[in-house]
Amino acid sequence: MILTVTPNPALDLTWRVDRLVEGGTHRADAGIARAGGKGLNVARVAHAEGEQVLAVTTTGGRVGEEFAAELGASGVPHALVPVAAETRRSIAVVDEALGDTTIINERGMNPSDVEWAAVLGEVVERLPSARVLVISGSLPPGAPDALLPMLIAVGKDAGVPVIADTSGPALLRAADAGATVLKPNAAELADATGIADPVEGARSLIDRGAELVLLSLGADGMLAVTASALVHARLDEPLAGNPTGAGDAGVAACAVLYAAGVRDPEQILRRATAWSAAAVLMPLAGDISPRWTALEQQIRVTHPDPSSFRPASS
Amino acid sequence: MILTVTPNPALDLTWRVDRLVEGGTHRADAGIARAGGKGLNVARVAHAEGEQVLAVTTTGGRVGEEFAAELGASGVPHALVPVAAETRRSIAVVDEALGDTTIINERGMNPSDVEWAAVLGEVVERLPSARVLVISGSLPPGAPDALLPMLIAVGKDAGVPVIADTSGPALLRAADAGATVLKPNAAELADATGIADPVEGARSLIDRGAELVLLSLGADGMLAVTASALVHARLDEPLAGNPTGAGDAGVAACAVLYAAGVRDPEQILRRATAWSAAAVLMPLAGDISPRWTALEQQIRVTHPDPSSFRPASS
Repeated sequence: MILTVTPNPALDLTWRVDRLVEGGTHRADAGIARAGGKGLNVARVAHAEGEQVLAVTTTGGRVGEEFAAELGASGVPHALVPVAAETRRSIAVVDEALGDTTIINERGMNPSDVEWAAVLGEVVERLPSARVLVISGSLPPGAPDALLPMLIAVGKDAGVPVIADTSGPALLRAADAGATVLKPNAAELADATGIADPVEGARSLIDRGAELVLLSLGADGMLAVTASALVHARLDEPLAGNPTGAGDAGVAACAVLYAAGVRDPEQILRRATAWSAAAVLMPLAGDISPRWTALEQQIRVTHPDPSSFRPASS
Repeated sequence: MILTVTPNPALDLTWRVDRLVEGGTHRADAGIARAGGKGLNVARVAHAEGEQVLAVTTTGGRVGEEFAAELGASGVPHALVPVAAETRRSIAVVDEALGDTTIINERGMNPSDVEWAAVLGEVVERLPSARVLVISGSLPPGAPDALLPMLIAVGKDAGVPVIADTSGPALLRAADAGATVLKPNAAELADATGIADPVEGARSLIDRGAELVLLSLGADGMLAVTASALVHARLDEPLAGNPTGAGDAGVAACAVLYAAGVRDPEQILRRATAWSAAAVLMPLAGDISPRWTALEQQIRVTHPDPSSFRPASS
């Protein structure tokens, strides 16, 4: 089973308008509500691909009730830790004419230490049947610095590989705590490490303790970096669509292969790149197109020279 | 008691962002939820000014629960008719830099005929203690054409003056059904009557059966038209602020004076213009500034010649 933890879940609300005009008044059909957050997207994708999953997160207040109801209807197995603070909302307004999406993410409220302890307890209880632990997404403002390292530590202690998708100082803390796989994008990596070169930045996370860094490069594909390997995968032409959740689909691919015992970075990278691309084709984060098997065949994999590799788009 | 009916209520959700960028991703504090809809705004303003009110509307689904909880906390007396369809949402994103607000109104779902009958039943039951009936705001798409005339008819039958704030074909139906007061804005009036001249347009509603037409002219103030009078009121300088709910505050002023037995169009117009202006000064619809008493002193009232009156801004 793939165990996912989402420390800062959100009820995602999406409205579609003909043409978004700042300062204007628009008519729209009823918004679509979905239980969101990066760890939930990972669980949704893996679940849809036939994997056993369990999504652990928190819920509070009326928004939390709506979140729980939607998640229940989705069929994705989950364990919700009740918290006093209301679950945050994330809103998306899709401009049908331009095809772009304007997003407003509420920051979220930090659960109490006792509530975080209950999250840790839930994870510890579920780990014996887990084959991989995924911790994905932001932490609410004010969350304890120790939370992510503790989650990683309980995973490692149970002998379970830990995939962490986070950014900022938490990315370095995750590497120091021995997360098995990290998945920043190029901007997050440079921001956290202060190193402009993506390969050098990824290597600095390996030096801190990570086994594999999956580095998403947007339209330029994805890079897998280990202590001994550097692999680059990309499609010849980037796909048009909705990039929200593409990284989560890549994490889901990595989790599925880790759960199956695969450790070959090229195989993981190929699948992660295919699922990311297949997510771009879908309107909602947490879904991937069945075209992923065809896409996986089209992916161009290279083993660049670390000293000269530069993403084409940077 | 002032009885208000809101046929198409909405849970109003408001977020504030530093600067709204189309296609961008924004961070925001938790959105503010408020039970909204024009009839509720009227009830809130009148209640805050010390009047006895009762707000009748429908609620359904989880959004309806949140709507009911917020309305309960507001202290505004209300009677909610349960319906199967989920209460709609209306979302507002305030750009703090520009000061403007982008609004998305869900259209709303039409209750069943049985549910509309329950709304009518609730109104009939409450009318004996009402001194004025206010019916405000849009109807959900697909609502029966007969609904607004029936609401007006039960009010008239109970001997209670009826104020209707509506637009489109419903405005003509309200006039034909004998609504006592109508409050379109200039664009709504021209749109419904097909008559470009605002005074002629208002007179056509009087001819159909209305006693008083309050015509809001935006920054150009407000016009009161009866069979025998034409009065114009405005501030020398328009106020900067949030115009949402300004018309509702004007309706509230009219309702309060009608409930007190006042029928003088000049007195009603002066108060309605003052409350509308005082609403512009407040960030949320349904509130008016205590500065309204001072504003009422500053309002310039004239009795223009009907044949030559043209709003300055048109």
